[in-house]
Amino acid sequence: MNPETKLAQLKTLLNEYTDLVSTIGLLHWDLETYMPDGGSDGRGYQVATLSRIAHLKLTSDEVGQLLEDLTPYTNELDPDADDARLIRVTNRLYRKKSKVPATLMAEIAKAASDAHLVWVRARQEANFGDFQPSLEMMLDLKRQYAECFRPFDHIYDPLLDDYEPGLKTADVQEIFTTLRPQQVELLRAISKSPQVDDSFLHQNFDESIQWKFGVEVITDYGYDWQRGRQDRSTHPFTQDIGLGDVRITTRFMDNYFPSAFFSTTHECGHGLYAQGIDANLDRTPLANGASSAIHESQSRMYENVIGRSRQFWTRYYPSLQDYFPVQLGNISLETFYNAINKVEPSLIRVEADEATYNMHIMLRLELEIALIEGSLEVKDLPEAWNNGMQEYLGITPPNDALGVLQDVHWSQGYLGYFSTYALGNLITAQLWECMAEDIPDLDAQIQRGEFNALTSWMREKVHRHGAKFEPQELVQRITGSKIDQRPYMRYLTNKYTEIYQQ
Amino acid sequence: MNPETKLAQLKTLLNEYTDLVSTIGLLHWDLETYMPDGGSDGRGYQVATLSRIAHLKLTSDEVGQLLEDLTPYTNELDPDADDARLIRVTNRLYRKKSKVPATLMAEIAKAASDAHLVWVRARQEANFGDFQPSLEMMLDLKRQYAECFRPFDHIYDPLLDDYEPGLKTADVQEIFTTLRPQQVELLRAISKSPQVDDSFLHQNFDESIQWKFGVEVITDYGYDWQRGRQDRSTHPFTQDIGLGDVRITTRFMDNYFPSAFFSTTHECGHGLYAQGIDANLDRTPLANGASSAIHESQSRMYENVIGRSRQFWTRYYPSLQDYFPVQLGNISLETFYNAINKVEPSLIRVEADEATYNMHIMLRLELEIALIEGSLEVKDLPEAWNNGMQEYLGITPPNDALGVLQDVHWSQGYLGYFSTYALGNLITAQLWECMAEDIPDLDAQIQRGEFNALTSWMREKVHRHGAKFEPQELVQRITGSKIDQRPYMRYLTNKYTEIYQQ
Repeated sequence: MNPETKLAQLKTLLNEYTDLVSTIGLLHWDLETYMPDGGSDGRGYQVATLSRIAHLKLTSDEVGQLLEDLTPYTNELDPDADDARLIRVTNRLYRKKSKVPATLMAEIAKAASDAHLVWVRARQEANFGDFQPSLEMMLDLKRQYAECFRPFDHIYDPLLDDYEPGLKTADVQEIFTTLRPQQVELLRAISKSPQVDDSFLHQNFDESIQWKFGVEVITDYGYDWQRGRQDRSTHPFTQDIGLGDVRITTRFMDNYFPSAFFSTTHECGHGLYAQGIDANLDRTPLANGASSAIHESQSRMYENVIGRSRQFWTRYYPSLQDYFPVQLGNISLETFYNAINKVEPSLIRVEADEATYNMHIMLRLELEIALIEGSLEVKDLPEAWNNGMQEYLGITPPNDALGVLQDVHWSQGYLGYFSTYALGNLITAQLWECMAEDIPDLDAQIQRGEFNALTSWMREKVHRHGAKFEPQELVQRITGSKIDQRPYMRYLTNKYTEIYQQ
Repeated sequence: MNPETKLAQLKTLLNEYTDLVSTIGLLHWDLETYMPDGGSDGRGYQVATLSRIAHLKLTSDEVGQLLEDLTPYTNELDPDADDARLIRVTNRLYRKKSKVPATLMAEIAKAASDAHLVWVRARQEANFGDFQPSLEMMLDLKRQYAECFRPFDHIYDPLLDDYEPGLKTADVQEIFTTLRPQQVELLRAISKSPQVDDSFLHQNFDESIQWKFGVEVITDYGYDWQRGRQDRSTHPFTQDIGLGDVRITTRFMDNYFPSAFFSTTHECGHGLYAQGIDANLDRTPLANGASSAIHESQSRMYENVIGRSRQFWTRYYPSLQDYFPVQLGNISLETFYNAINKVEPSLIRVEADEATYNMHIMLRLELEIALIEGSLEVKDLPEAWNNGMQEYLGITPPNDALGVLQDVHWSQGYLGYFSTYALGNLITAQLWECMAEDIPDLDAQIQRGEFNALTSWMREKVHRHGAKFEPQELVQRITGSKIDQRPYMRYLTNKYTEIYQQ
């Protein structure tokens, strides 16, 4: 059998695998949007069954043999060709998934499922002790998971690699070690300036008008409604169900304008990424983002770098005032712009501003690594958390609900995930500086509400490649260097020096 | 290995099979409600992949061996026990599905997919000739399908059996041969009486108020919103995604009240059936209705026997008048009741009244059997259709769009389906007569808007059993006789004699 035939066979199997994964996406989207409560037991079974079938299909001997046979063939191909990258990425996936016993995967899924309710209740009661045994069990399981991938430089490497293919713990630590003192210094400078007033953002804003305004903005951004839709959910998310069907969700707070707007624009960024992937990659493992951090670079770009910029609001603030004349009619653009960029150390990560956000992440990464290494015991975690918050942000959580229990990630076994949020911020700024060189009047375009050149640039450089390149490789190809904190620090410093007029 | 262990193994496989089928249900529901247009190619692949995996799972050697091993074991069980019935029903399913080559199933699916657009366009153009080749191909494929099940008494038997397990063509022909002259006679009598006026139903009725009223009624019927929801779709349908998640859809006409209301109550009947199936049967092939006709008996009961009754509107008409005071404030209950029960021979089946509906079905059944037998050629179908309409209803379609091209069924290969609509009507009346004996004040309860005893009776006698019994067996167990046209003729005669005061 010639390699072309084998490749076609592999693609057929991967198409079926991806159809299953896309369908699991729909099961998840529906669970979070429209499923009646009575469906929850059945939904659990459906997801488990499809996940098991998908796993068996990907890790089958047939896939293994085809990959082995096809690996020499990749030398005949352009290394950047879709087929060469498909074989390479599938090989990686196959090896990762094959190394972990199905029983361990089932144990982790079960532990996550059991831990969810325990975590919800512990958070309600603000009592970390109730959650401690669940976290201990999850850490034990995730250590066993990581052990499947020996040899490694650091036991955290395999966990990080699940979200950031190819990235090492040491790389991330180095980036953050450099970043941290610079962010601390910026925050110190900001804290010496008079605080801005954002009280007017806490008024009643009609939900349906918020919806309308958000939809107008992301339509201008280029979100394709023929291949997407927006719905409400408790926690906003983006779900693709194949490249032709990329959905986003948002949530509303009646009494605080920024919540829905920045959630909508954030998810739109994720959505534009998925909608921009080359249609030829559909129904394969390449029909994904390059990594969680690269995905986050897109969402945060449309949310923050564009959506919280002066240029953007120069164009859109008059429209927003028209929608909310009572609330905003007497508020100047300047006051509004400063308010949505207010910097204030706060307890909750998801509510943090751009300048303090990364501090939350760095704390989590340090603790997570210490927990996995075993240098920090779970029982000592709340104290370590509170000390870290005091050290990094100068505030101490009054209780565990507002501290160590705030995020769902650890209960679900998402260890390795947190750093991708901060890395996404850094990558955003790197990409932005490159793009600004290619599009000299970028600011003027944004000020006119024109995003076509911007989104086309991202599509060309980032989106269309899907998962063909690993994150560091992709960043290097576009910017000429690996992930680097300097552009982000320049961005933050410029922005906040002006707002806080130090 | 003891039989209990084998049964547990079989159940595990059937659970997975049913999880896949339920998920296909969600893919379908989403396609008809919320999927953006861009998802349609991907959706086709997802459904095809999951259908193929489900088919392979059900017809696997493993399932075949377990069934063979377990068949003697059923003799040790109560023949009505869930486990005994599960083995029996699964055996039936396994044998049916195993007899048809996967290639033929794929050809039928492909032909249906190709024929759909051809049919849509032919109907738009009102030109049967354009659709003729597609129908010829489909008939050829369905004949090949039926041939897989030799020996049989009639080539139509295997097609009918897909929808009505155990029922034979001869049985249905006998029922309809007896029914037809009686319905014709009733219609003749009605046509001699003065026609009722329903013009006031054709006014503007606000959609959101229609929605509200429909929801109130089906909530009273007992539809469980914890395990269901209602959405809009072009063609109303009921979709279960497991027994804990049974959804209905409806559609609205702004300028005609009955459309949405009777669609909502019809689908609610299907929904109550699925919601009433014993939860112990969930995730198995028993978690379905007994047959299409039994399902239709429930939908038509809540739509027609209850929803178009004088008792029902005695209770609900004042509420409806409150919702639509301008449109209905001056219309008496009597006038309204007569209007929603107006009998008039019409061209389109889905718009037919209760008295003429079965005539549409009998015509289709005759033609369908003749086509499959080969005694009628496809090219002669339009003429046969028009002659039949003239003979049965005294009207001739002015074109094929309003005649032979009106239904989607044949293009999709749903041959064997049509008779289940009429059989459903007959079964409704049979069940109703039995229930009325058990609940002496049934009419008074309906007049008070109390449906608890009624729905509980249906739940006990019909719903909870799921697919444990074949339709004839179920009807016999409840009513003491097989499917019988007499109760339905009594129902029609009583109702319309009074309305048309012959």
